[in-house]
Amino acid sequence: MATPKNIIIVGGVAGGMSCATRLRRLDEHANIIVIEKGPFISYANCGLPYALGGVITDESKLNVQTAAKIESWFNVRVRINTELMSIDRESKTIKIRDEQNPNKDEFTTLPYDKLVLAMGAKPVLPKITGIDTARIFQLHTIPDLRELEAFIKKTGAKRAGVIGGGFIGIEAVENLKKLGLDVTLIEFLPHVFGPIDADMAEILHTEMRKNGVNLLLNARMTKILPSTGHSCSVFFEHDPENPLVFDVALCAIGIRPRTSVVTSAGIETGKFGGIKVNDCLQTNDPDIYAVGDMVETYNLVAGTNMITALAGPANRQGRLAADHICGRTVKYRGNVGATICKVFDKTLGLVGFSPSAMDRMGGFKYEYVTVHPPNHAGYYPGAANMTMRVAFEVPTGRLLGAQIVGEEGVDKRIDVLATAMRAGMTIEDLEHLELCYAPPYNAAKDPVNMAGFVGGNVLRGDVEIVHADEFGRSNAAAGPPPQGADCEGGGKKPKLRLQDYQVVDVRTPAEWNRGHLATGVNVPISELREHIGELDKKAKTVVLCQVGYRGYLAYRILKQSGFDVHNLDGGFKIVTDGGYEDLQAKV
Amino acid sequence: MATPKNIIIVGGVAGGMSCATRLRRLDEHANIIVIEKGPFISYANCGLPYALGGVITDESKLNVQTAAKIESWFNVRVRINTELMSIDRESKTIKIRDEQNPNKDEFTTLPYDKLVLAMGAKPVLPKITGIDTARIFQLHTIPDLRELEAFIKKTGAKRAGVIGGGFIGIEAVENLKKLGLDVTLIEFLPHVFGPIDADMAEILHTEMRKNGVNLLLNARMTKILPSTGHSCSVFFEHDPENPLVFDVALCAIGIRPRTSVVTSAGIETGKFGGIKVNDCLQTNDPDIYAVGDMVETYNLVAGTNMITALAGPANRQGRLAADHICGRTVKYRGNVGATICKVFDKTLGLVGFSPSAMDRMGGFKYEYVTVHPPNHAGYYPGAANMTMRVAFEVPTGRLLGAQIVGEEGVDKRIDVLATAMRAGMTIEDLEHLELCYAPPYNAAKDPVNMAGFVGGNVLRGDVEIVHADEFGRSNAAAGPPPQGADCEGGGKKPKLRLQDYQVVDVRTPAEWNRGHLATGVNVPISELREHIGELDKKAKTVVLCQVGYRGYLAYRILKQSGFDVHNLDGGFKIVTDGGYEDLQAKV
Repeated sequence: MATPKNIIIVGGVAGGMSCATRLRRLDEHANIIVIEKGPFISYANCGLPYALGGVITDESKLNVQTAAKIESWFNVRVRINTELMSIDRESKTIKIRDEQNPNKDEFTTLPYDKLVLAMGAKPVLPKITGIDTARIFQLHTIPDLRELEAFIKKTGAKRAGVIGGGFIGIEAVENLKKLGLDVTLIEFLPHVFGPIDADMAEILHTEMRKNGVNLLLNARMTKILPSTGHSCSVFFEHDPENPLVFDVALCAIGIRPRTSVVTSAGIETGKFGGIKVNDCLQTNDPDIYAVGDMVETYNLVAGTNMITALAGPANRQGRLAADHICGRTVKYRGNVGATICKVFDKTLGLVGFSPSAMDRMGGFKYEYVTVHPPNHAGYYPGAANMTMRVAFEVPTGRLLGAQIVGEEGVDKRIDVLATAMRAGMTIEDLEHLELCYAPPYNAAKDPVNMAGFVGGNVLRGDVEIVHADEFGRSNAAAGPPPQGADCEGGGKKPKLRLQDYQVVDVRTPAEWNRGHLATGVNVPISELREHIGELDKKAKTVVLCQVGYRGYLAYRILKQSGFDVHNLDGGFKIVTDGGYEDLQAKV
Repeated sequence: MATPKNIIIVGGVAGGMSCATRLRRLDEHANIIVIEKGPFISYANCGLPYALGGVITDESKLNVQTAAKIESWFNVRVRINTELMSIDRESKTIKIRDEQNPNKDEFTTLPYDKLVLAMGAKPVLPKITGIDTARIFQLHTIPDLRELEAFIKKTGAKRAGVIGGGFIGIEAVENLKKLGLDVTLIEFLPHVFGPIDADMAEILHTEMRKNGVNLLLNARMTKILPSTGHSCSVFFEHDPENPLVFDVALCAIGIRPRTSVVTSAGIETGKFGGIKVNDCLQTNDPDIYAVGDMVETYNLVAGTNMITALAGPANRQGRLAADHICGRTVKYRGNVGATICKVFDKTLGLVGFSPSAMDRMGGFKYEYVTVHPPNHAGYYPGAANMTMRVAFEVPTGRLLGAQIVGEEGVDKRIDVLATAMRAGMTIEDLEHLELCYAPPYNAAKDPVNMAGFVGGNVLRGDVEIVHADEFGRSNAAAGPPPQGADCEGGGKKPKLRLQDYQVVDVRTPAEWNRGHLATGVNVPISELREHIGELDKKAKTVVLCQVGYRGYLAYRILKQSGFDVHNLDGGFKIVTDGGYEDLQAKV
């Protein structure tokens, strides 16, 4: 196959630039043109929140590459401030407009042999009155950042609202706090990070509140009006009389693939509105490729196509599209959806799907385990427990997803799990992973191993478990799901009642006295064998301890004595940390 | 199968205690006895160097479990200070001696149905005059630690010698420096950490020297004699007139499986002196199991049995032995050998085998790549490059090993690679790994992806590379290999001569002026296309840049113009960091 002569790439950030540079490395002779709508290419949009907060002090570092460098190193023509206006597939040409051109109707026509679309996604705004006020910003591009920074500086804004508790919103919250602003997070859903479980999110709510963030959850905005002085007021459905007054707001409720020009040319989209591509990143027109945040790709866990708007996959897709254009055999391998977010001193990591997300999607037969292992040897300074939840398919054991909230070392375990999931491993395979150990870095049994041991025990029937959310509802799942929400706040509807069980808490009396479930008796594990005769063998029994291990020992002792018993997954710690207030005895 | 009644476990640390506790969880009714030679069970011997240095301030934390707790939680009988004296396989009994018993000839006989040996390994001492001086300590047990601490305190020792530059030796070096001692490391081989490559070790030599450690490499001790005052002198073969005077020394040259009692009973050992076990951890006597540092297990990379003396595998083996004793189907899956070590502000990680180790072992057909990626986004504070070398089989691409020296995030990448190796992945599979990314944690292309891209390019023939050690020898490989050494200092004998090549350094003039190879011309990558006519197309050509990426671009440009060209793996950075002084122009 002859290499095509004219290759045009639309979009000059992750996917587009990876494609352009790979093309040049493979083919010294092609004409390669990159069209970029904005004034910068290869800028690090993931760094924008940190530049806002002054964590990144040198904003110029966000420009990973400049057009001049790309042109001199790669002999690629880069046209910034240039927008794609239309695609004519028949003549294989595109029309573009230079935004610096005073004549807005003057388009240039360029011929292509292959066209690569890497146009990304654009932020979505809620459709309410006043959302177009000058005080509401986005944080998607370097110009967005500069506008917001200039506004805060000029007006001396003190009260900030962040609309949307997803990744960008939460990073913005932390960084606006760093700037010394009063920050209120406005979240439509019952908890931040819609894709995770409510009780896991509650740990992050606690962290944000500890850092002085005002959280407004289940908060449906109705309108935004100018207020006294320089401020605005945002009104809410649940409490119309008490608007929130803010000086500046950032909206980060989500993104949508930038597809209008593309679909006008008859390029097909999938059910989530992203461009449909095959394994070679070709659209329904084999001469037109699409990559990055604008496409739908195969999700290995769900077994269907989805939008995975992440930089790593975008880069990889761009590279593979280049390979395919140059005649190579290519197969994009799909995504597992590995993501991570800093939340003040905590980190949230997610790969695959949470149990609550699987409930919403339907069609999964899963179980999950919740463990609280330390990031490294407990006796080495700086050890801190993380909360880790791993879900797996029943009865195959195939890994379906993991959520981790912790301090150091969350990213490591997510990456190990993402690699395991990519390899098609099961929960039992995690027992056998050999991970590096020295006291500053790990425990001899890594958290991933621990999840494997606990989950493997469950899968094999060595222990039967119940979950806190079968008995009660986390604070973070409270409130009716707003209409049209694609997240119900996590957590199934409780279906069991604690008072129907013989609850045996096997922690020490000191632990018990610090707080315990609303019902139950305290029989420390060290005394369980001698007091076993005092327990009712006929009663359905739940055992628990602080994190789950002693509960498991108790399960084994009672089960072998003929009890019908379950261990509380994640122990009393998930009851407190996860905000299951109704399950706890009032103290 | 009926569960055995009497189970005796010899050795109460990692493997032994994992076995005992798992046994009890599976079977409430067995008699389980643990025999431990020392005064402590479940102590964290990996923490000993850090307790020595005061990094771990509370030494009691090293006792992960106490005998009392094990007895009360698990109903397991623990006999500390008790030594196994003999095994009678015919009568299925063992003889033990209580070390507190004043009558040293009084043994107790215990019957077993199943016997689990988890006796570990003992430190080896070099066979030289004076090695038995009271000033030479080991650091293998808590009593060892206490003796050493007491000695330093009592004598006010200032000059410390550490014999052996392996994991424990290097950890001890750092911690003795923390105590304010003058520390000399005495290493028999040309470089520390025998299993890694010489140039990688050189980065660690630099780190240790920067921290004030005196390194004596290629140092063969001949004798140790009492010296003036309280000190001793150690004499060396290479310089018999200049002994090193020390006040206290720690010997950590290696360990040997503790097998004498066991082999006397006819239990078989393998070629490395460890107990032979099958996949179920059974010895040649099916009622006798062995686990941990004393056994040989299958190494997935080498395809043969080896000793892997690590805590994680020991724990796992103990657990699986318990499972098998209780009638479960068990298969130990072997090791990839994932290890990690803190070296002052650097971290060394290793999984599988280094190229130099494979050369010594023979039978491998491999290639490797060396990259220097940042631990996380370069624009986020705290970014630091690591040096990462990944070896893979040719032509299959199967991963054979990785070495990483860096600051933060080394452990993460070793664990991802260990998981990938366990899954049987290839170097090309690393290109496709989806790893979590946010600026505080990673770059959009993880170091593991980068190694995959570079290695994949090599495997596919998209770039041809040469290595620095084909042209010259790292300082750290200098000196004749000592006789009988199982490490020749890493690095093959140089077989190419730089002066036979047209060397094209494509870095900037500023970079060139800071140092460059002994031969070559400087043609910045941005000017290569315009100056290509000035280069000799008939000459064998080597291109290089600082870390390898621009060299790769140059390779692609020159190759497509008909040059016979290779890129220097790891760039000029590995030449300087790796100590290839002879390859550099004198400045």
